[in-house]
Amino acid sequence: MTFQIKQEIASCGGKLMKLSHTSKQTGTDMEVNVYLPKQYFHKQDQSIPVVYYLSGLTCTPQNASEKAFWQPQADKFGFALVFPDTSPRGEGVPDDPEGSWDFGISASFYVDATQEPYRKNYQMFSYIHDELPRELSHFFENRGSSKLDFFENIAITGHSMGGFGALSAYLKFYAERKYKSCSAFAPVSFPSKVQWGRKAFGGYLGQEEEGWKSYDPGHLIKTTTNIGDDRILIHQGTGDPFYKEQLKPELLLEASKGTSWDGKISLNLVEGFDHSYFFVSTFVPEHAKFHAKNLGLI
Amino acid sequence: MTFQIKQEIASCGGKLMKLSHTSKQTGTDMEVNVYLPKQYFHKQDQSIPVVYYLSGLTCTPQNASEKAFWQPQADKFGFALVFPDTSPRGEGVPDDPEGSWDFGISASFYVDATQEPYRKNYQMFSYIHDELPRELSHFFENRGSSKLDFFENIAITGHSMGGFGALSAYLKFYAERKYKSCSAFAPVSFPSKVQWGRKAFGGYLGQEEEGWKSYDPGHLIKTTTNIGDDRILIHQGTGDPFYKEQLKPELLLEASKGTSWDGKISLNLVEGFDHSYFFVSTFVPEHAKFHAKNLGLI
Repeated sequence: MTFQIKQEIASCGGKLMKLSHTSKQTGTDMEVNVYLPKQYFHKQDQSIPVVYYLSGLTCTPQNASEKAFWQPQADKFGFALVFPDTSPRGEGVPDDPEGSWDFGISASFYVDATQEPYRKNYQMFSYIHDELPRELSHFFENRGSSKLDFFENIAITGHSMGGFGALSAYLKFYAERKYKSCSAFAPVSFPSKVQWGRKAFGGYLGQEEEGWKSYDPGHLIKTTTNIGDDRILIHQGTGDPFYKEQLKPELLLEASKGTSWDGKISLNLVEGFDHSYFFVSTFVPEHAKFHAKNLGLI
Repeated sequence: MTFQIKQEIASCGGKLMKLSHTSKQTGTDMEVNVYLPKQYFHKQDQSIPVVYYLSGLTCTPQNASEKAFWQPQADKFGFALVFPDTSPRGEGVPDDPEGSWDFGISASFYVDATQEPYRKNYQMFSYIHDELPRELSHFFENRGSSKLDFFENIAITGHSMGGFGALSAYLKFYAERKYKSCSAFAPVSFPSKVQWGRKAFGGYLGQEEEGWKSYDPGHLIKTTTNIGDDRILIHQGTGDPFYKEQLKPELLLEASKGTSWDGKISLNLVEGFDHSYFFVSTFVPEHAKFHAKNLGLI
């Protein structure tokens, strides 16, 4: 269903649009923020690539829009940004019965749930990678603009749970080269091996671990052939309290050993940085440049 | 009293320190954030100027630290940042009896209150311009560093109520050239003439308007002689819902007509921008450059 504009905010050289719509996939109203860079307003007929940013546990589309400070980078290189929500929300949406913050509402792990009671609403994979871009594309076309490229020349990135979501989707769709570029900030790198991931996969996908593999970067990295010289960029703060227990980017590197991704994952351990947006915003310029290169903007 | 370090956060090239101490002026515990730029850690024996940022109504030291994105600018030019709180807080601190957000807690207007019951705690002018820099200076000296210049080569800026606070303090102390540089984002420019200011001045300083003049930029601009070629930089969004009723920067320009400040206030009306940190963060780079010039950093 088409979007309602909740707010249009001047930011840097462009505009942040706060949108909401009713999703068929999740059966709920979903919020999403879109940043239109200055190029959207100033250049005619030029296709503008989209970078999808998936947020971490507890976040909404607002956190990264306010604190990650992607906007000046989007203006610098000429890409748009899409900040989806982290889960379905609202009356009737089942949450973690224990009320924790690492499962249920705002903790979808961006998968299509197969288990009750989550199956009905937690269809976030299909929502983000299919319904959302289609609906956004229609919405902007109906406004008379078809210069935003939501499908072809696109990149994906994310933070923590969203870093997992970015890695997972990039690798799942790698054969068709859906996402031209992937990076992650402190991602949950091999969810089957850590508590956050096991809880999420178990709850949404069931206890049979075989069913987890098609989402897990630690498995996908082994079953996906890097056909070019594609690289994945990762930053991880050494002062991040979740680094050693939940994120474990080294496990992904280890899994890539001997595969076509061996040496193609740039893991940057950054001294003292924590898990917050102070960390994310510090390295956004480097990720922006990485994506801009892969999207042919520089 | 000396500071407790509540958190030290790696951010951009430096560190954000979240501090708290007990203030003699306010009689309460006060929080303050200090950003130490990369130069603090990398260069020896070089004096680092300080920029004081006064936040607006409802804010704490956190909002601007997270959303204004001063940090990369501080690194670029080599100044430190101090983000004080917007009022005393805590048990026993009198608030607006009507519970509004434009008076009382988080709405001190940075004055020294003379009226009961505010007089005891709301001594924010003396706190910010005297006690806080002295205590910060002692704190960093006790940690073995005296390179932060909290007193001599300093600048002041702020947003909304904090923009007023910056203009007010700059002009009050202009004769002694305490602050070398002043700018403001959407400031309450002539508080005696608008509802926010009249309520605040009336409540903290009493109903006798004569007593308001020593804080009001609209009066101070007439009684303060610009002895050099000093300029004041102001940005104001035209989409700001408070622009026409509460902020009214044009009144300050009008007041400056025929004075030594005539033509020295650069008021930049920016199309469509609102009152949020999306507005502030967009123009922080320009303000940073302005202060860096006035502080001799470029």
